[in-house]
Amino acid sequence: MLELDRLIQLLAKLPGLGPRSARRAALYLIKRRESVMEPLAVALKEAAAHIHPCSVCGNLDTSDPCSLCRDPRRDQGTICVVEDVADLWAIERSASFKGVYHVLGGTLSALDGIGPEDLKIEALAERVTRTKAREVILAMNANVEGQTTAHYIADRLADSGALVSRLAHGVPVGGELDYLDEGTLTAALKSRAPLKD
Amino acid sequence: MLELDRLIQLLAKLPGLGPRSARRAALYLIKRRESVMEPLAVALKEAAAHIHPCSVCGNLDTSDPCSLCRDPRRDQGTICVVEDVADLWAIERSASFKGVYHVLGGTLSALDGIGPEDLKIEALAERVTRTKAREVILAMNANVEGQTTAHYIADRLADSGALVSRLAHGVPVGGELDYLDEGTLTAALKSRAPLKD
Repeated sequence: MLELDRLIQLLAKLPGLGPRSARRAALYLIKRRESVMEPLAVALKEAAAHIHPCSVCGNLDTSDPCSLCRDPRRDQGTICVVEDVADLWAIERSASFKGVYHVLGGTLSALDGIGPEDLKIEALAERVTRTKAREVILAMNANVEGQTTAHYIADRLADSGALVSRLAHGVPVGGELDYLDEGTLTAALKSRAPLKD
Repeated sequence: MLELDRLIQLLAKLPGLGPRSARRAALYLIKRRESVMEPLAVALKEAAAHIHPCSVCGNLDTSDPCSLCRDPRRDQGTICVVEDVADLWAIERSASFKGVYHVLGGTLSALDGIGPEDLKIEALAERVTRTKAREVILAMNANVEGQTTAHYIADRLADSGALVSRLAHGVPVGGELDYLDEGTLTAALKSRAPLKD
């Protein structure tokens, strides 16, 4: 059956779904034709037609500039640099950041042949200079590629006049020391802070 | 953003995807607008429009009766009864059955309030009598609900003239005894067979 095979094939491409779960998902959808399957088809079409990357920060939105870039309550002078839109969403969920973002679109990776010109690094440098940003927070992932990228960007912005900072390393809230790696413990010890009440 | 939230909400309904993986899937889709997102929207619409349950066996297909029921090379006198279309697919993948199927649409479950009238049991009995089927293979799952359902159907078909059989219990091919439960080992011992070459 061509229609079904095609649907399963496409569902199996989604991250988190393999061939087996794609079959289950297809069955689930066919059994819920009106409540899920047809609405999902419409939602995909709508999203494909209306959602685009923001030309300022790279966030995904239906308007350009995006709602975050246009929000007058957000501090345009503090730019948080993230690898991906998923990271932007994660920080937004924490509701602890009131500045604006800059999505790089990945990390430097010699192995995958991704150089500075493949990421929005020059656009960031240009944006920092143009908007006279006060602070650039590098919120890369705490792995080798993320930290390499952070150091590259810090070097690139050295003469920009902006303060370049990075996220703190340490014990995750709720984390148990016994399960943490040595690197995290070393960082947590090194950045220990006086206990205030 | 309404469009994106709606898409994530619908993706999160798929079995195997939670809220987090639904966000990842939505991002994945938006980044692959032309290669995956738009084709998936079309595939969903096509499948919703063309795939229906077979009125004979309950299999899903674009034609009715389905391609299995219409296949002259398949033995119409041997009916394999399965709980769900997914089980039918699993048996078809094994390519070891050349009869036809009957999809029950679930199992008897006092807890969930599912009685015989909620399943295609009367339709099965009527079909067995009408087609004078030689054998009915009960291929329910090997759990309490599956076995209860199998016994109920066996009782119902007692006077039908058809031989009622069930799948063999035993050690799964490639399985290690050390990891098997006692029930499986007991069944495997009880149904032991002479070693032939």
